[in-house]
Amino acid sequence: MLDKVLSTLKADHDAALAELFEFMKFQSVSADPAHGGDVRRCAEWLAALLTRDGFTASVEETGGHPAVVARWQKAPDAPTVLVYGHYDVQPALMEDGWTTDPFEPQLNEGRICGRGASDDKGQLFCHIAGLRAHLRAVGKLPVNVIMLFEGEEESGSDNLEGYLVAKRSELACDAVIASDTAQYTGGRAALTYGLRGLTYLEVTLTGPNRDLHSGTLGGVIANPATALARMVGLLVDESGRVNVPGFYDDVTPLEQWERDAWAKLDYDEAALAAELGVTDLFGEPGYTAVERMWARPTLDVNGIWSGYTGEGAKTVIPAVAGAKLSCRLVPDQEPDKIAELVERRLRLSCPPGLKMEVKHLHGAKPVLLPSEGKFVDCAKAAVGAAWGEDPVFIREGGSIPVIETFVRVLDAPVVLMGFGRPDDRIHGPDERFHLEDFHRGMEASARFW
Amino acid sequence: MLDKVLSTLKADHDAALAELFEFMKFQSVSADPAHGGDVRRCAEWLAALLTRDGFTASVEETGGHPAVVARWQKAPDAPTVLVYGHYDVQPALMEDGWTTDPFEPQLNEGRICGRGASDDKGQLFCHIAGLRAHLRAVGKLPVNVIMLFEGEEESGSDNLEGYLVAKRSELACDAVIASDTAQYTGGRAALTYGLRGLTYLEVTLTGPNRDLHSGTLGGVIANPATALARMVGLLVDESGRVNVPGFYDDVTPLEQWERDAWAKLDYDEAALAAELGVTDLFGEPGYTAVERMWARPTLDVNGIWSGYTGEGAKTVIPAVAGAKLSCRLVPDQEPDKIAELVERRLRLSCPPGLKMEVKHLHGAKPVLLPSEGKFVDCAKAAVGAAWGEDPVFIREGGSIPVIETFVRVLDAPVVLMGFGRPDDRIHGPDERFHLEDFHRGMEASARFW
Repeated sequence: MLDKVLSTLKADHDAALAELFEFMKFQSVSADPAHGGDVRRCAEWLAALLTRDGFTASVEETGGHPAVVARWQKAPDAPTVLVYGHYDVQPALMEDGWTTDPFEPQLNEGRICGRGASDDKGQLFCHIAGLRAHLRAVGKLPVNVIMLFEGEEESGSDNLEGYLVAKRSELACDAVIASDTAQYTGGRAALTYGLRGLTYLEVTLTGPNRDLHSGTLGGVIANPATALARMVGLLVDESGRVNVPGFYDDVTPLEQWERDAWAKLDYDEAALAAELGVTDLFGEPGYTAVERMWARPTLDVNGIWSGYTGEGAKTVIPAVAGAKLSCRLVPDQEPDKIAELVERRLRLSCPPGLKMEVKHLHGAKPVLLPSEGKFVDCAKAAVGAAWGEDPVFIREGGSIPVIETFVRVLDAPVVLMGFGRPDDRIHGPDERFHLEDFHRGMEASARFW
Repeated sequence: MLDKVLSTLKADHDAALAELFEFMKFQSVSADPAHGGDVRRCAEWLAALLTRDGFTASVEETGGHPAVVARWQKAPDAPTVLVYGHYDVQPALMEDGWTTDPFEPQLNEGRICGRGASDDKGQLFCHIAGLRAHLRAVGKLPVNVIMLFEGEEESGSDNLEGYLVAKRSELACDAVIASDTAQYTGGRAALTYGLRGLTYLEVTLTGPNRDLHSGTLGGVIANPATALARMVGLLVDESGRVNVPGFYDDVTPLEQWERDAWAKLDYDEAALAAELGVTDLFGEPGYTAVERMWARPTLDVNGIWSGYTGEGAKTVIPAVAGAKLSCRLVPDQEPDKIAELVERRLRLSCPPGLKMEVKHLHGAKPVLLPSEGKFVDCAKAAVGAAWGEDPVFIREGGSIPVIETFVRVLDAPVVLMGFGRPDDRIHGPDERFHLEDFHRGMEASARFW
């Protein structure tokens, strides 16, 4: 029976690619209100496709951009698995440095190129293809399936938790699988069992009621730009360690088995430095690059602005300065608590005469998932067969806030089965998804069921 | 004879104001290449006016924007005085917050409003009016006069030194007077005997070859924005003192007579804080606000930029970060040496993997002028009579690089006779010059001769 499914899947390769291209053409940029219509049209297209393929599918209102839910629940004694993915994408403009139109997908040198290729339209589509191959080959699925494809992941999943809570009983399941992570470097099969969290702050310092002449008045008042640089600069020490009292208090140390397993990955730090175009990597002492990326918290300045930034010299004391800061968090750091600690540290070093305002823009809890159990074992076997090698167990530096929400609201184990690669350029120009990974991803999904 | 001159001057008040308005209508913005034609037309207008008024005037090429030179040298045994001023102005656009069109000057509530009103067209015009009153009243001047009006002061006086050196013998003089400074607060007569210098740097940090995702790669490399904040932040300590080794080494301490004299000025720090809209003043401990403004060096961030600065949260590690920094200098700090010290301090704290580039954009030496002597005494008497009170001797926080050049190249004492006020909003929107100061400035000039 599996053979029949896999041969059906294989026969479907070209059609699946054509449909993925159609899917990728929708400019479903959830962060940009101007693309609201595109997001909805994309959801409608997806629901129609799933209906055609034999699922009971609908566009579901969430209060924000809609979700697409598709069900096949005709296996009474079998477990129910929820497949999560998102059909919305990051913004993409040619002038950001794209080689080809981000919304005119194409196949170049064995890579599917375009916005959403890997994050997450391409990976999500692997599951659609893997599931429908069963329906096409044998007319049924071995398990019950609920697909839930979100339209707001790239803009913060603001409405998903409310939706999950409201629909908790209808979405009850034995496990959640999601493919919104990546394989290990270089196309090596991997399952991800940990994600970092996030807390994001914007700080604004206001000084004098107007820009001042730095000659006439330099030395008389606190300069917001100078003060902000100092306040923000104090948050990280010269070694790269975060210098905020209490910041590391709740960090769960890496376990020895993880450090041992990751050491065996032989992560090529020199290759990473070369790929990024830097002479040296840099970060918290005492940890390898992989450990720092996957399992250690960070504090980054994501943006900073003040004063004159044009050509040449302007001798101004700016009236206002601002910065965007974010911390990647690891278990058991709490986003709100860390935001408070950072804000307190900033406030302590704010000189007299400046008004400091802090906005907490975003938070996501870090999460550690089971690295063993029935569903993890199935995923391990499926991915292992599709890739021809046992997957390694890795963590991921990024945050997928909704994963923690699934764990908490649906109380089900989540399995992260990443088909993309770390160098798929997600969120940047020339996002891509290797055709080979698309094929292996579809196979892994088909085998998983 | 003086009475006749002064009454002629008084009769000329309205005509002088009308001519000043005509002068201010030229958009002689030297920093903006688009206004090159306006700068030249302004110079031609000025030369024509001076020719009409009885001077031998011409537009002189300098390699950049032209200078206007006007002479009256028919007093063989009398000293020669050079009057310096500049007819170019700072940029000004309505959208910067002007209440009235910056280049449509008008008189509002006893103030001449418009770009250049105080800096420096209005003040410069006081000398034209003061000098021509002598010619109109008695047909001659008591001294020889060379007027030199520059067209590049607001863009760095790049060509003036070369011009002065080339024309050193033709510009030989016994003293230089200039009115490009201000009275003491609130319209109190003052002579300025010290100017701070300047050194201006732009630092750029380049990290990875593209913006990175702060989740996927946060913790692996040095973030240029985080590093720049830290590097720049380290340049000033929490008390507001500059934290660059060697920075204060060449600072000439304030003399006791200066501190005593300035203490008697009863500078109203609370009023300044209120005027600037801050709760507290702030700066180097151990010095009053006036001392910090006039006679202590500073380090200010004039601009800083990196990464995402739009609405909301973007989790990016920026590829590049930059800042503009400047130091106000006091005797005997050397701009180039201070720039080197700052650059060295920045380099010391630059983390591995980042490329740091520093441009030295601008430098001006600080200067201390004589506070006594024949020409200072004349200025003191002239200003004292026009204002009805003895002028106080002050320094100024800003830099007028050309003053140091005059001292060095022409080897003549320079007298700074400021007719404007500290709150004339020079370089900002709604620049203004009190009509009363215009009248007193013309009288002081007429009396000086």
